[in-house]
Amino acid sequence: MEVPEVVVGRLPQYVRVLRDLQKKGDRLVSSKELGDLLQMTPAQIRKDLSYFGRFGKQGRGYSVASLLDQLKGILALDREWRIALVGVGRLGRAILGYPGFAPEGFQIVAAFDDDQRQVGQALAGLIVQPMSEMPRIVTEKDIRIAIVAVPAAQAQNVVNQLVSCGVKSVLNYAPVSVQTPEGVRVRGIDPVLSLQSMTYYLGAELGSAQQKRAHRIGARA
Amino acid sequence: MEVPEVVVGRLPQYVRVLRDLQKKGDRLVSSKELGDLLQMTPAQIRKDLSYFGRFGKQGRGYSVASLLDQLKGILALDREWRIALVGVGRLGRAILGYPGFAPEGFQIVAAFDDDQRQVGQALAGLIVQPMSEMPRIVTEKDIRIAIVAVPAAQAQNVVNQLVSCGVKSVLNYAPVSVQTPEGVRVRGIDPVLSLQSMTYYLGAELGSAQQKRAHRIGARA
Repeated sequence: MEVPEVVVGRLPQYVRVLRDLQKKGDRLVSSKELGDLLQMTPAQIRKDLSYFGRFGKQGRGYSVASLLDQLKGILALDREWRIALVGVGRLGRAILGYPGFAPEGFQIVAAFDDDQRQVGQALAGLIVQPMSEMPRIVTEKDIRIAIVAVPAAQAQNVVNQLVSCGVKSVLNYAPVSVQTPEGVRVRGIDPVLSLQSMTYYLGAELGSAQQKRAHRIGARA
Repeated sequence: MEVPEVVVGRLPQYVRVLRDLQKKGDRLVSSKELGDLLQMTPAQIRKDLSYFGRFGKQGRGYSVASLLDQLKGILALDREWRIALVGVGRLGRAILGYPGFAPEGFQIVAAFDDDQRQVGQALAGLIVQPMSEMPRIVTEKDIRIAIVAVPAAQAQNVVNQLVSCGVKSVLNYAPVSVQTPEGVRVRGIDPVLSLQSMTYYLGAELGSAQQKRAHRIGARA
């Protein structure tokens, strides 16, 4: 059964919430409680999880430990993933220093740049490699994930090279959307969607007429 | 009625889908169709929209034009928003050149940097200003949104300065999580969540034992 990409995209949030419950010492969780934590209806929770088999017992809730364990397995988080970083400018260096990857099993094992002044430098225990070395190193180190931190104008070209080396997943920091063939996934910041999710609150402060109308209708209904 | 942040975060996706339907010439859309497009249950769609009043008629579906119009009003997308950019390095310059903001009503009207070599330069029609000018310019131009494109080590300090100038919404490109007081919202790339939503597919290719098990259970249930 094919699992919709949107559902897969939600699973890491389930993992976070379940980890928090486990830290609190909770052993069972209902779809109602999960729904409250994730702001979704219990029916949506049950539907999402139903793609992956039958986790809970009707009326008893899910075992926190077992659901967490299974979701981590399904997301393939129970292993180490080797990552290539492309672009070691200011942003790339910050990414190399980000402490959140290693505890989650993500290891940056290669860094590339096409700037000759960067190539050969030692950063975070890695020697920056020229782009021409990418095919050999990606194959040798069995790298399937790449983080792209190059200028927007170069992003598509870099992603093309990564794809031709066999990379299947790209995290794109460049503020530009890139195209990939089927079977290759890209995640990136979508600056417009992110901004639009904040203007709601700004509008509320400024007293949007539409918002007032909606609240009035809501109060009446 | 307080609208959960997760629901607000989904509304821009509703807006995108409704725009596509409008372009296609569709006039009515059911919660089932919206659910198919957004990979959510019809009940979840109805619940999300119920926070904002009564949009649809039972059994008839929603008017695409009217729902789109109202959601744009609720998200306060029916106006221009002035944005300050902090950090005009490689990434900041790419953001200044991003063509997706203006058509959505987002205008970058000021650029700041603490690097004296950047200050005074003309970029995308703006003169890069020193950080010391931030309080004056943010107030004068009535800026409520900022995009932060500084190195990770400086991000928290920059966000503090923005908050003290009255900025209420921050889009953070630095790979670090920043703290803000209540009432100030931050969106950023969460690199670990993004990576975790892709490893599912990599695991499937490599044949994760857990995934096989889940599929087997699913097939049996």
